[in-house]
Amino acid sequence: MTMQGRDVFVGAVGMVPFAKYRDRTLEDLGREAVRAALRDAVIPRASIEEAFCGSGYGGPLVGQRVLRDLGMTGMPVTNVENACSSGATALREAATAIALGRCESALAFGIDKLTQFGGGTVPLETTDLEVSQGMVMPALYAMRARRYMQETGATAADLARVVVKSRGNAALNPYAQYRKPTTVKEVLGSKMIADPFTLFMCSPTADGAAAAVLGTEQKMREWGIAKPILIAASILQSGLYKTGYRDMAHSELGTRSARLAYEEAGVGPEDIDVAEVHDAFAIAELMYYEAFGFCAEGEGVRFLESGGSSIRGTTAVNPSGGLLSRGHPIGPTGVAQVCEMVWHLRGEAGARQVPGAKVALTHCSGGGIAGLDHGASTVHVLIA
Amino acid sequence: MTMQGRDVFVGAVGMVPFAKYRDRTLEDLGREAVRAALRDAVIPRASIEEAFCGSGYGGPLVGQRVLRDLGMTGMPVTNVENACSSGATALREAATAIALGRCESALAFGIDKLTQFGGGTVPLETTDLEVSQGMVMPALYAMRARRYMQETGATAADLARVVVKSRGNAALNPYAQYRKPTTVKEVLGSKMIADPFTLFMCSPTADGAAAAVLGTEQKMREWGIAKPILIAASILQSGLYKTGYRDMAHSELGTRSARLAYEEAGVGPEDIDVAEVHDAFAIAELMYYEAFGFCAEGEGVRFLESGGSSIRGTTAVNPSGGLLSRGHPIGPTGVAQVCEMVWHLRGEAGARQVPGAKVALTHCSGGGIAGLDHGASTVHVLIA
Repeated sequence: MTMQGRDVFVGAVGMVPFAKYRDRTLEDLGREAVRAALRDAVIPRASIEEAFCGSGYGGPLVGQRVLRDLGMTGMPVTNVENACSSGATALREAATAIALGRCESALAFGIDKLTQFGGGTVPLETTDLEVSQGMVMPALYAMRARRYMQETGATAADLARVVVKSRGNAALNPYAQYRKPTTVKEVLGSKMIADPFTLFMCSPTADGAAAAVLGTEQKMREWGIAKPILIAASILQSGLYKTGYRDMAHSELGTRSARLAYEEAGVGPEDIDVAEVHDAFAIAELMYYEAFGFCAEGEGVRFLESGGSSIRGTTAVNPSGGLLSRGHPIGPTGVAQVCEMVWHLRGEAGARQVPGAKVALTHCSGGGIAGLDHGASTVHVLIA
Repeated sequence: MTMQGRDVFVGAVGMVPFAKYRDRTLEDLGREAVRAALRDAVIPRASIEEAFCGSGYGGPLVGQRVLRDLGMTGMPVTNVENACSSGATALREAATAIALGRCESALAFGIDKLTQFGGGTVPLETTDLEVSQGMVMPALYAMRARRYMQETGATAADLARVVVKSRGNAALNPYAQYRKPTTVKEVLGSKMIADPFTLFMCSPTADGAAAAVLGTEQKMREWGIAKPILIAASILQSGLYKTGYRDMAHSELGTRSARLAYEEAGVGPEDIDVAEVHDAFAIAELMYYEAFGFCAEGEGVRFLESGGSSIRGTTAVNPSGGLLSRGHPIGPTGVAQVCEMVWHLRGEAGARQVPGAKVALTHCSGGGIAGLDHGASTVHVLIA
């Protein structure tokens, strides 16, 4: 099994290291990422037939604004917005267009500049009653963490250990925003944000851009791509908005998205060598270990502490440092995950390389409407 | 010829009359339009497998926010932004997903509430140097109008006659924002906005929502759709940004988009019985007559004055009243055009019905980057 239609491959990737680029424009970051992807495999600009741009806050025609100044004009350009899943949704639409035969090649990129908001939490769903009453993302995830801790006996120190692993991986990743290794003590001692989360347990705001060039098998040959990466599954799902407090520690939406992705790709959790999951807050990574079947339910902390999710573990999770340390500029996050997985599947991830990685999973979860469940969950399965 | 993949049909449509709804939320307008579309053919909510929402200014996860409160959850929802072509782009992505076989049915809707900006021109590409120096939409189209007038001998009174036709059609359309018939004298006497445009020659800002339900032939049978409308072509193109002042009076992008649509649908301009085109300003309708081949180049005014574009003309253009009179809330505009064309192709357009309409064209043009050319042009061909 695989996606419907023709096989679609990722042939080239590129990204801008995530950081706070107060002196650069959004368009400039986007151009750098697109140029990096095109240079990754010496792909002529004129051979790109369609483009999809994922952005949360880029404003009108952001994709066209980036591509115009690269001379990539006169083609279909579609901007998509799905909150934190914006970039991943752009990737899905690009893959769909190629699978259908609407085009032979497509560019998918993500872009956002969160420093335009001055810092702190970005504006999200201000017409949502819960959000306007204070149920912002850190508060939402903190409630989930409290419930998870009550159910499983996990402690704040366990959450800190997620961050310690994250910073350790990021130290090996030149694209990551926070690359200094840390300790449980330092994480717990950082500023309290929303109990039990300290500052280090929350993904930082950032600016950034990431790009991927997709194409058919024929295009991969034409471009001389040595190791094309198959998109074996591309899933997008919205929440059910039925979650009660007893389910807060379990991601129904994440579980469902992963199940559909496994079905589409014809693989199971045991086949996933490496994954980039949406660790927007430290608790999320533990919950997603379980939701995606990397370990049994309630075993997240044990899985982490056994080294199962480390770079040399059974399922390496967030070798890039994830959202917690690579950074989370919203739009580009899902595409940056794909960049990271492509590098691992090619064996080009340098010091953080997951040995022998053949099957990879990426996951984003966009929005937190109605306090509990999420708006747009995406899961991609990539095969070397 | 038709779109690649499986045939895709529009089975049901619905919209909110465009107006300034200062006392209603964006989500409320969206729900009303979606409910109207689902009631148009008694389509169960649970039978919709994917949704695509086009919005220029709806903010994060606007589609999910609308659908959540309709109980339409647990499915893929994608938000797209392509300025004035946002709704049409949502329609294209929905058609693509069905054509590929990713789903059997999909909802495409558009939504925006421009009164949130208080009135006047909405913020557009503020990082664009030309725009920030004053090259806003009315100024851009006014320059095009001046050039067109110089080349063809058209007068301000000719532009006014476009508006007179528009208001005359809108008078017959219960969904239109401005329904009072007008005269050349009244149009010319209205407030000057950007010479040669008076107020009546500019499309008004509005709030609104429009929705369409798409599906396979099998779904049309299942839903008991008496007159399914085939989407014979769905084209999106970006500009070349090469237009010099000598070309201002000609829409290279419009011409190219229409040519691709005609090729995809296997029809020519002579086959188009009725069209909804992007008359954001009065000059635009004249230019698009020519760009789409409804008349020869430079013959726009003659075509209008001969009645060729009237409801009983050779190619009825904007029987709804178009952007000038139905209103132009950005996101929903492209979907509202499809609603209008579906009503005509079914013979359900009431007093403004184009007699015997069998082939229809819709066209949106999003953005005006770099002063001259456009960002996202969409053309759909629909066949009864």
